[in-house]
Amino acid sequence: MRIAVLGTGMVGQALAGRLAELGHEVTTGTRDPADTLARTEPDAMGNPPYREWADAHPQVRLATFAEAAAGADLVVNATSGQVSMAALTAAGRDNLAGKVLVDVANPLDSSAGFPPTLFVKDTYSLGEQIQVAFPEAKVVKTLNTMTASLMVHPTQLSDGEHTVFVSGNDVDAKQTTIALLESFGHTDVIDLGDISTARGAETLLPIWLRLMTAVNTPIFNFKIVR
Amino acid sequence: MRIAVLGTGMVGQALAGRLAELGHEVTTGTRDPADTLARTEPDAMGNPPYREWADAHPQVRLATFAEAAAGADLVVNATSGQVSMAALTAAGRDNLAGKVLVDVANPLDSSAGFPPTLFVKDTYSLGEQIQVAFPEAKVVKTLNTMTASLMVHPTQLSDGEHTVFVSGNDVDAKQTTIALLESFGHTDVIDLGDISTARGAETLLPIWLRLMTAVNTPIFNFKIVR
Repeated sequence: MRIAVLGTGMVGQALAGRLAELGHEVTTGTRDPADTLARTEPDAMGNPPYREWADAHPQVRLATFAEAAAGADLVVNATSGQVSMAALTAAGRDNLAGKVLVDVANPLDSSAGFPPTLFVKDTYSLGEQIQVAFPEAKVVKTLNTMTASLMVHPTQLSDGEHTVFVSGNDVDAKQTTIALLESFGHTDVIDLGDISTARGAETLLPIWLRLMTAVNTPIFNFKIVR
Repeated sequence: MRIAVLGTGMVGQALAGRLAELGHEVTTGTRDPADTLARTEPDAMGNPPYREWADAHPQVRLATFAEAAAGADLVVNATSGQVSMAALTAAGRDNLAGKVLVDVANPLDSSAGFPPTLFVKDTYSLGEQIQVAFPEAKVVKTLNTMTASLMVHPTQLSDGEHTVFVSGNDVDAKQTTIALLESFGHTDVIDLGDISTARGAETLLPIWLRLMTAVNTPIFNFKIVR
């Protein structure tokens, strides 16, 4: 598949790298490719600059949000939640229309320090905001409930014995997404329902952030025992 | 231990019954005992009236919130979240002072139908509200992330291979609470930290409610795989 991964941070890199490794034709999208490539300093989280990652992944092309989305069959929103609407607007409604839009972003506001808080509360969700703003895209919320490396290499933890959620209005889009998740190694996918159930997946973040401190690693995940 | 369980609904009954079975001296607390015993109809959730349960548990005494709390070493808030502050106020600040106050309530507002929404969002919590209102009580938030029967009989599901959280400011109060949880059969207790971490435990409810529909049973729980 031709896949656009919007966002060049830790999450975007993890997803783009894994998708390319699995044989997909991957383009990462950013606001200004020249600017992204010109950065030589680690980002605010201490991750190395994109250029280093790009040098190690020559098969992944870098383009503007709009170019990346235009050339893709499926688009992944891997931008941080606070800039997701701007990034998707730059990608362009026409370039997203009719396509599966996998949304892994979280509506986190870090402006008041740790832990960040939700800028969309439990009566709405970023996933729904995106679906409303881009009605012709087929939004599927998923993967936002775990750290980037577990998203794409779930079997590193307990042989993959943990859960990933999907939320979305379009059954076929969810099936396409689930097939991608399974190709990463996920074995326990729970379909929560329509895109309004993204409220549930997004409000897992407050306890996720506390758990990261309590268990002293980001390499953990929820398993729904039933 | 002498334990007061405030609340006579499904959660209060489950906790009071199990604690009595384990040899504790249990009193349930309610606003008006005569009124509670006079009810002959199932409650809004279809649970049988308290009198039926009381007849099957003659060792559990029923008293007012204040009487129950006054005679107890440890108090459990098993009232529904919307009436918790009123119930604890009726129990009396002096009757709670110096005691472990195990808070299992959720700040759910069902007035707009299913799913209910949180009436305290992720920047505060009901657990913290209670701690602030009753500064001399030692509030421990726990058990609010699972259905009543799993709270007290966790081994019925996957031999108890799932997680329960505790949040609270007082280390000894958490140890006392953890010992009670272990006496119920819980084996995986995660101490999230101080009472502000109750925000995380309470914001699990939105996905809990969606999962109940998705997995078609309330008998499920979160396991933190790490």
